[in-house]
Amino acid sequence: MKLSTPHLLGIKDLAKEDIALILSTAAQFKEVLQRPVKKVPSLRDVTVVNLFFENSTRTRMSFELAEKRLSADSLNFTASASSVAKGETLLDTVNNILSMKVDMVVMRHSASGAPHFLAKHIPAAIINAGDGINEHPTQALLDAYSMQEKLNRSLEGLKVAIIGDIMHSRVALSNIYLLTKMGADVTVAGPPTLIPKYISEALGVRVEYNVLKALQWCDVANVLRIQLERMNQPLFSSLREYSLAYGINKKMLDSLNKEIVIMHPGPINRGVELDSDVANGPHSIILNQVENGVAVRMAALYLLADRD
Amino acid sequence: MKLSTPHLLGIKDLAKEDIALILSTAAQFKEVLQRPVKKVPSLRDVTVVNLFFENSTRTRMSFELAEKRLSADSLNFTASASSVAKGETLLDTVNNILSMKVDMVVMRHSASGAPHFLAKHIPAAIINAGDGINEHPTQALLDAYSMQEKLNRSLEGLKVAIIGDIMHSRVALSNIYLLTKMGADVTVAGPPTLIPKYISEALGVRVEYNVLKALQWCDVANVLRIQLERMNQPLFSSLREYSLAYGINKKMLDSLNKEIVIMHPGPINRGVELDSDVANGPHSIILNQVENGVAVRMAALYLLADRD
Amino acid sequence: MKLSTPHLLGIKDLAKEDIALILSTAAQFKEVLQRPVKKVPSLRDVTVVNLFFENSTRTRMSFELAEKRLSADSLNFTASASSVAKGETLLDTVNNILSMKVDMVVMRHSASGAPHFLAKHIPAAIINAGDGINEHPTQALLDAYSMQEKLNRSLEGLKVAIIGDIMHSRVALSNIYLLTKMGADVTVAGPPTLIPKYISEALGVRVEYNVLKALQWCDVANVLRIQLERMNQPLFSSLREYSLAYGINKKMLDSLNKEIVIMHPGPINRGVELDSDVANGPHSIILNQVENGVAVRMAALYLLADRD
Repeated sequence: MKLSTPHLLGIKDLAKEDIALILSTAAQFKEVLQRPVKKVPSLRDVTVVNLFFENSTRTRMSFELAEKRLSADSLNFTASASSVAKGETLLDTVNNILSMKVDMVVMRHSASGAPHFLAKHIPAAIINAGDGINEHPTQALLDAYSMQEKLNRSLEGLKVAIIGDIMHSRVALSNIYLLTKMGADVTVAGPPTLIPKYISEALGVRVEYNVLKALQWCDVANVLRIQLERMNQPLFSSLREYSLAYGINKKMLDSLNKEIVIMHPGPINRGVELDSDVANGPHSIILNQVENGVAVRMAALYLLADRD
Repeated sequence: MKLSTPHLLGIKDLAKEDIALILSTAAQFKEVLQRPVKKVPSLRDVTVVNLFFENSTRTRMSFELAEKRLSADSLNFTASASSVAKGETLLDTVNNILSMKVDMVVMRHSASGAPHFLAKHIPAAIINAGDGINEHPTQALLDAYSMQEKLNRSLEGLKVAIIGDIMHSRVALSNIYLLTKMGADVTVAGPPTLIPKYISEALGVRVEYNVLKALQWCDVANVLRIQLERMNQPLFSSLREYSLAYGINKKMLDSLNKEIVIMHPGPINRGVELDSDVANGPHSIILNQVENGVAVRMAALYLLADRD
Repeated sequence: MKLSTPHLLGIKDLAKEDIALILSTAAQFKEVLQRPVKKVPSLRDVTVVNLFFENSTRTRMSFELAEKRLSADSLNFTASASSVAKGETLLDTVNNILSMKVDMVVMRHSASGAPHFLAKHIPAAIINAGDGINEHPTQALLDAYSMQEKLNRSLEGLKVAIIGDIMHSRVALSNIYLLTKMGADVTVAGPPTLIPKYISEALGVRVEYNVLKALQWCDVANVLRIQLERMNQPLFSSLREYSLAYGINKKMLDSLNKEIVIMHPGPINRGVELDSDVANGPHSIILNQVENGVAVRMAALYLLADRD
């Protein structure tokens, strides 16, 4: 089985069959990760460069670990230590790195569309590890994998609420693309100022401004981080105000009279969008998401390397 | 032989037998490091994350090299490039990293007790690579190893002077715990402002404010770095004043009419606590300490991984 | 075949035979890099430390990749994360690292002569990866390799113009040493303020202040980066002024009625010393230089490791 695309730039243009192939391949790698010896020689002759123009410990480490588990050689590039400071263009930076015979590029960039631009100009396989406020496809894939695994069912007909700062979230957008494509029902919930008006018509999701009602409706709540660092103007008088109106606590979950799955892409603002007893509670699969991230990224790297 | 502890958090609570086991295992790895091929496959299936919340070139490189010599996979995490900037808790950061199926954590942190806190909450083996002004156990172990090796004798009855900034030094504290536990006689020497009053009664060491007298008494002088960066207020009008009153020079050594061993954990402030002709002289085993550090850290990693 | 030197500190004191040996060995490694499996086990038991006291993405990555292709273990050391901040001397820093049984040091430093100083004091093989405004020998070697490869001829009698900021360029100096040693004719061209007066008599090169005339004369134009960050005082009222007087554009190349090879060590200031349609054009071998850099550095590392 092969992917129908040479890159993983986003979920928007990814075929349903490709999503299914990545998820089923991830299940095989997850089995490998349960063994005492977690390493496979699959990509022994492949060199991957992790090009992080934005800091991200967890995503960078998850990819680096996935590469090491596959026996690939990884090189790390971070913007602060780079020629970018000397005014080089993105294309020159990447072309230079590729001329060194690097096979794959994992890229995070603050500009939406940066990996798509590169994919048009360079011959290596590119994985988007987050571009601006556009997409974060491996996060959506690991979220989907974690939902299926926890509930032991397909995404078809699953009710998923995505809660919080929808406007600034590439995680939200990639999740919406993936879930609607695979037949799930999606509701986005949060404050009106953080939910763009076009999202309902354009993406086929329901909008709900009352978080409790969204929880009452859903099977899975994927709670997003309030990304204060992305907000250009104060949208709330305080985090405390956000927490009171839109944060999720144990009392709300107890009132539901049903079990729902709690997810969060991290890092958590504890006490803001999610209380600690919810994040650490029995409904939470937050650390499973992190664990599954390595398996999903191994699958993406393996399939894009296109080895037999 | 096995350690009786799943972690190496400090010397204070480490059993004498565990110290002896680490030191004898280090001797075996030191032999490996003399060979042309210095690598062994012992930890081929182990992943170690080096979590450095404080900068430390020498300790981080020593651990990384020890991991590579053992064929482990290492991941480096430094605070500046991390989610810590986004306000994540220490426990969330580490739990996330461990969810990626990391087996061991080598951790340096500016807060005393940080690795002990983690050890209560996470399932991986933890090695403390320095926590605040508390402990730096692998430094004390490599110091002990280097004394035994140089003098070809046990620590029992050995006279060791620890000289300099005792108050701010985790190296001093770990050395005192280890040496007194193994039966050595310990004197701490230095300016009264840098020797805490409780140290004599609490830890069973002699205090001496005259450095020359300490040198006349001892077999081994472990000279500490004046850690200006840890001092909240000026304790001396100048480094020159410190050097004149407490620095060690060749003339002092020549006046002793006996040979003593000179040690220093580095980095040296040359001309402050130690003159260059002492640091580079025939009594100095400072670079042997660095060399032995890799063998001692290999031993700690190997024993904590608990492989057969 | 063996090098007659234990270090690669510069081209100035390198024998012609050593240059030829490195270039012919690089050709063998270039063949390896065309294979699907680009890795050889030659330096499996060698540890190399990349000591970068100045930032340099491309050179550091090129060396790191060369080391990985040779199966060496690499450790990265960057000044910002180092004990240098604590005031340690260069010699102490390097001696400490070497005491950890590191076999080779690749070193970049802002002080001219830093690697030569080290070579006198430490037992490991040293490769200079750029020292101040002195030398950058592997760049000159990869430039020479790329000229020979592109033109399929020896350097003897080849006409090479080195164009731009000669005064602040270690690339220029290493290229001049290498090319004149191997029998090429060298002209340096650029603004009088950026060409030191001694260069013509001392180094046996022609000086030309008119860039178009230099292009009309040469077979190969090696165009240097305008290193604004190295200029202590403004030498031009603007980059635009530099570009108009000394920048190279397609119209100039079209006017030559012959084909010349365009080179640049990167990173390019597009639109300043080189227009984009020249940098990306059919005469440019800029990305080949980057590719060949890995093979040349593999050759240098391999030969200095002196394995049979």
